[in-house]
Amino acid sequence: MKQLDFFYFFGSGYAYLSVMRIDGMAKQSGVAVRWRPFNVRTVMAENNIALSTQAAKVKYMWRDVERRAATHGVPYVRAPFWPTDPDLLANRVAMVAAEEGWCEAYSVASFRAWYLEGMELGSRAHLEHVLSPLGQHIDDVIAKADGRLAHERLKAETDAARSYGIFGSPAFVVDGETFWGDDRLEEALAWAAGRHDLQTLNHDG
Amino acid sequence: MKQLDFFYFFGSGYAYLSVMRIDGMAKQSGVAVRWRPFNVRTVMAENNIALSTQAAKVKYMWRDVERRAATHGVPYVRAPFWPTDPDLLANRVAMVAAEEGWCEAYSVASFRAWYLEGMELGSRAHLEHVLSPLGQHIDDVIAKADGRLAHERLKAETDAARSYGIFGSPAFVVDGETFWGDDRLEEALAWAAGRHDLQTLNHDG
Repeated sequence: MKQLDFFYFFGSGYAYLSVMRIDGMAKQSGVAVRWRPFNVRTVMAENNIALSTQAAKVKYMWRDVERRAATHGVPYVRAPFWPTDPDLLANRVAMVAAEEGWCEAYSVASFRAWYLEGMELGSRAHLEHVLSPLGQHIDDVIAKADGRLAHERLKAETDAARSYGIFGSPAFVVDGETFWGDDRLEEALAWAAGRHDLQTLNHDG
Repeated sequence: MKQLDFFYFFGSGYAYLSVMRIDGMAKQSGVAVRWRPFNVRTVMAENNIALSTQAAKVKYMWRDVERRAATHGVPYVRAPFWPTDPDLLANRVAMVAAEEGWCEAYSVASFRAWYLEGMELGSRAHLEHVLSPLGQHIDDVIAKADGRLAHERLKAETDAARSYGIFGSPAFVVDGETFWGDDRLEEALAWAAGRHDLQTLNHDG
């Protein structure tokens, strides 16, 4: 089965759309997804594209997410708290979850709580709300998320994202081919399935 | 007939895709297009998103344009000279063309020459190649493009783009609703035709 690496950040507005869409779409395409949260703040700073100084772009982003959610039938209430997860706790909990095999369930629950229930990512309320139904004990998880292993994994995954030329979230990598943005999810899956028009053209030519 | 304002820049890689696609798609949707070149360099600088310092993003852009050209059946040979049109001459000629009613034909011919024939936008060779078939005399046109009116129009169109919250090229505006990027052209046309899902949702609710 073809594999797609899904790179995303807890706190990225557009990642919400992919978190909500990717499982069903990948199954339909027969593609296996590896959920790989990474620290997009680092690579955005390195590329001089931190959003905080781009007022017009930020304003546009939330309206665009609202429109795209409607287009894709993804639930939407309002623009969420942003920026959020100041000390990356929600992202470091994701490292624990990835290590232990419950990253996808944690990610979907987290983004839903953030977008649909107005919670701040990484807050006590958010983590309690999300972790309990997953059978995880909040204090144990936070202890691990504060540990060396979680910090190292987040750095390693961010290095991996950078090595694929990724500069924003979400992004998708298939056989070393990088696609940036939720609006490229369809193309990334087509690439994985070998039915992207560029592949076809190259094959014909 | 509904109107869509098409804001783009001579020298914007992604604008090529829209320049090549918009006429046929708009006709199919029954939407009238107003071609409005503007100075994206100004608004990108204002928003701290000048591409020149974003190596990973620039590298990604050309590969993405190549893939998207294949997806849309738009001809593609290689990434064009870039950056190009250093003193905005190709863009200022567009102001003359817009004033005189031949902006669309000039734009399509310019982008084709830039992408498909390897010409530098605004170079003597480029302008000769593009203007002659349009029945325009190069020296007359350059004289007007260097004049006060062309400079003022470019500034006014850039002000208009900024007032719509535009921070990049290409962008589309319909009834004050702004869409950024060639990948939003379908949505902008759907909006113009009143069949965007967000409009439908609002109407139902």
